Amino acid sequence: MTKIVTGLEPLFNPRSVAVIGASNNVNKWGRSTFSSLMKHYRGDLYAVNKREEKILGHPVYKRVTDIPGEVDLVVIVIPPENVAGVMEDCVKKGIKASVIITAGFAETGPQGKALQDKVVNIARRGGIRIVGPNCMGMWSASARLTAFMFPMDILDGPLALISQGGNIGGALVADATARGIGFRHYVSCGCTADIQIEDYVEYLGHDDSVKVIMLYIEGLGDGNRFVEKVKKVTRMKPVVALKPGKTDAAARAISSHSGALSGSDPVYDAAFKKAGVLRVESSTELLDLGIGLLTQPLPKGRNVVITTPGGSYGVMCAEACALRGMNIIDLPDSAMKTFNTMFPSRWSHGNPVDPAGDRDFVQYLRAPEVALQCPEVDALIFMGFGSFSALSSVFGGGKGGTGIMNWVKGIEGIEEMAPAALKILNSGDEKDIRQLVKALIGMMFASIMPTKSLKMDEFLETLSGALTTEKMLHTSFFDTLNDLFESLTTGNSDKLGDINIMDLMEPIPGALVRGLIEKYGKPMITTTFTEGNTQLSEAGHFPYPNSDRASNVLKNF
Amino acid sequence: MTKIVTGLEPLFNPRSVAVIGASNNVNKWGRSTFSSLMKHYRGDLYAVNKREEKILGHPVYKRVTDIPGEVDLVVIVIPPENVAGVMEDCVKKGIKASVIITAGFAETGPQGKALQDKVVNIARRGGIRIVGPNCMGMWSASARLTAFMFPMDILDGPLALISQGGNIGGALVADATARGIGFRHYVSCGCTADIQIEDYVEYLGHDDSVKVIMLYIEGLGDGNRFVEKVKKVTRMKPVVALKPGKTDAAARAISSHSGALSGSDPVYDAAFKKAGVLRVESSTELLDLGIGLLTQPLPKGRNVVITTPGGSYGVMCAEACALRGMNIIDLPDSAMKTFNTMFPSRWSHGNPVDPAGDRDFVQYLRAPEVALQCPEVDALIFMGFGSFSALSSVFGGGKGGTGIMNWVKGIEGIEEMAPAALKILNSGDEKDIRQLVKALIGMMFASIMPTKSLKMDEFLETLSGALTTEKMLHTSFFDTLNDLFESLTTGNSDKLGDINIMDLMEPIPGALVRGLIEKYGKPMITTTFTEGNTQLSEAGHFPYPNSDRASNVLKNF
Repeated sequence: MTKIVTGLEPLFNPRSVAVIGASNNVNKWGRSTFSSLMKHYRGDLYAVNKREEKILGHPVYKRVTDIPGEVDLVVIVIPPENVAGVMEDCVKKGIKASVIITAGFAETGPQGKALQDKVVNIARRGGIRIVGPNCMGMWSASARLTAFMFPMDILDGPLALISQGGNIGGALVADATARGIGFRHYVSCGCTADIQIEDYVEYLGHDDSVKVIMLYIEGLGDGNRFVEKVKKVTRMKPVVALKPGKTDAAARAISSHSGALSGSDPVYDAAFKKAGVLRVESSTELLDLGIGLLTQPLPKGRNVVITTPGGSYGVMCAEACALRGMNIIDLPDSAMKTFNTMFPSRWSHGNPVDPAGDRDFVQYLRAPEVALQCPEVDALIFMGFGSFSALSSVFGGGKGGTGIMNWVKGIEGIEEMAPAALKILNSGDEKDIRQLVKALIGMMFASIMPTKSLKMDEFLETLSGALTTEKMLHTSFFDTLNDLFESLTTGNSDKLGDINIMDLMEPIPGALVRGLIEKYGKPMITTTFTEGNTQLSEAGHFPYPNSDRASNVLKNF
Repeated sequence: MTKIVTGLEPLFNPRSVAVIGASNNVNKWGRSTFSSLMKHYRGDLYAVNKREEKILGHPVYKRVTDIPGEVDLVVIVIPPENVAGVMEDCVKKGIKASVIITAGFAETGPQGKALQDKVVNIARRGGIRIVGPNCMGMWSASARLTAFMFPMDILDGPLALISQGGNIGGALVADATARGIGFRHYVSCGCTADIQIEDYVEYLGHDDSVKVIMLYIEGLGDGNRFVEKVKKVTRMKPVVALKPGKTDAAARAISSHSGALSGSDPVYDAAFKKAGVLRVESSTELLDLGIGLLTQPLPKGRNVVITTPGGSYGVMCAEACALRGMNIIDLPDSAMKTFNTMFPSRWSHGNPVDPAGDRDFVQYLRAPEVALQCPEVDALIFMGFGSFSALSSVFGGGKGGTGIMNWVKGIEGIEEMAPAALKILNSGDEKDIRQLVKALIGMMFASIMPTKSLKMDEFLETLSGALTTEKMLHTSFFDTLNDLFESLTTGNSDKLGDINIMDLMEPIPGALVRGLIEKYGKPMITTTFTEGNTQLSEAGHFPYPNSDRASNVLKNF
């Protein structure tokens, strides 16, 4: 264990927490901070307030030194002028770590900076580490620690985020939650008076449950120290940073916000390169790249093939890739030949690969593998992800509804198959389940489109294989299958009416993509048809809402 | 009426439509094209097919010449080699306009181009105008004409879109629908063999229900003709264009897609400038700017003030604006003085204006007016739009739920006020309703935050005025108010449990923004906290999901 790992342990895994400035007054941050902690933290939680008797059912201590038990971490949310005095108490009490939410320190000018230095000096004397001040708090999934200034929804997951901006951090957390992905740790580090960004990175480097580290930096205290510490971490896992400050306007805003010196942008650029940190330009891009690094292998070169269900999509994607330095290669002869046999003669005959309105969607789903198996191809962008699922609307789909029932019952042979299928599903036998899924997908395809494909069997094998791979948790897919066959067996269609056809259809393209990524070890980035939030699929695949964002991820790889 | 207006009338307002190639076969586009038309079109609709007898309840004619009644418009969805023959029939029948969905013409090479020329020559002989070929169809709200190759949801509205890409067009339509905004006309014009993009623009220029014209262009037939025709339209209403083709990769993709010559990018840039067309770089930006032009006045200069509920947001927005040539001006002295009296001493003391975690949110809502009234300020970006509504979660909000009920009942005096309030709401007296809304907002504010503001009265006047302005249709706001007071009066809280607190809270910031825009005649662009789709608010205001997109709209103004 390095010094930093043991040193920050009481912060990320405290056995007890005290909120200094907890309050019943809904107009004070101390109230929402205390209720935020109450929501998830399960260690000992104490409220400290000079004037109140009981807060949300908890006894209140006048000073932290009055608390009978040991306290690992304090969360401080009181006026700035009182923080130094309270920190003296914390030293007496033997507190190990603190989160100072209070603002009004270095970011307000020289007087605030002097006050901040005073607090840091007292804390150092007692060996108390400080997060903040002027921050929004932190989250540690390993301790279910929600030490935020107001309740926030956050998921456990493989990301970590250290942010010098609480609002940007909170927005990233909210966006990630909407995208279905979570954080192992998130720290809003504010003025970073004590623990520096590189210290957090070093700690996160040693935590195996953290797969990608994301940073929002306004200014670093010591650039060389950052490079030295962070370059050791980037050898193990990716670190992505958002660092504004290219313009005077942003530099001025930074100084009044976190009190940091924004510094010269080219110097930062060089430092990030030296440290192996990937730099992005917006918070959207930060999360996009973070998810990309989690879900995709890195490409060996810049040669990209685009497959698109529509010409104009392909045009915009080719432009987006080319503007970002990607090479939209000529299709290898072997791929050209295969596409000629698969698609109607009006297909695009080039890259982007566009079947030009072919009704046989199976061919479109087969196209990626044709390209990926060419050694010249380093990466693939598959556009219109989820459009296969969108077919459900053709059958009067959506949630529940008789349209689904009519369609499902219209699949030839499915009613006869139901009792045996149910038995197989419940048996848990992977080989049998795989055969079942293969048969079912085949029947679904046959019912909605011509299956003239010569390699239909191989294709089904790939799909069913991907869907039943142990690594993938297609819970809703198998749950829906179960409901479906149960309804067909019992003849009681009540349950069938509740089935969301998307749960049956969506895992299929997700599994197809994951399967191809694993088979070829090349990135296969997908885009949906429309804008808005997109979600990590059950198969562990994330589709981007447009080609700008998809090509940007590839550029940063 | 110009020649183009009368000439395209049968296309945009046909009294009767025939689908040539209509089909019962779900594997053919002719099936989905016919059902798309059936869904909304209310004029006479005919099915033409050589082999089928009845399609979805409609009698089938073997040839268009067999149809007894007059036919204004034909939609053609048959193999390309049969189109010329069918067009001969159309000439005989006296058809006036056609939409050729069929692909396989100029975009496939010289042979396809020859076939296309043949079809155009036949049509010209009969005076038949052509949309397409190789297109996805069109929408005209004035005729409820959904002549698409598959059913699409589309709203009537003030936008118009002409797109040389059916997929981009369809995605824009879907995105706009999700954002709550609609189209008066949308044409997927494909290979533009006959009617040129500038012809559509000329037609749309004369339609007063169209407020903003959006274009997706792959290549123009005659650049000079485009400039001559379009510059007359841009004097009346804004025209925004997306034109890929800066890179070779995109130019190649364009030629295989629409058969167009992409042309030299600087030449296009110059042509757009001459024609007064605003050029954008992505489909997201196209719709963002279209909505911006609908909802905002144009600024007189580049001086911007940013108000932000969080420092890091302000930093990112200042950077985004500065990188796009906006001037983040020093705050005028008068504004600085006022903010000093409004905010805690830790506020940012500059632009971006950041109250640094002030709990008195009323002050934050008052900040925009302080800036807008300074003559030096040309435009304002107000960040964190909707965060006021987000407060509802603090009170256990969300849809239904006892949290809302407890909170509403906790507003001092509201139960006593209910019977009288209900009477006022039902009276329809604007002055009284305005007083009621003012009192109610005052009570809501008082219940959730300190109201130390000196100008609380003026502020409430502005809010209630904006909410009750006739121009704004706050239907859900007043419906919710009615439900609320009814429940409080009858003591039956069943209805109260169903109230969505957002319907009560959301119109308030929307109305605030609309009111300020009207009062000062300056753009006030807003951003939400998080990514994803955002919607046009009931007040007619649209918040952007991040500062990049907000500043981009300002840049393009």
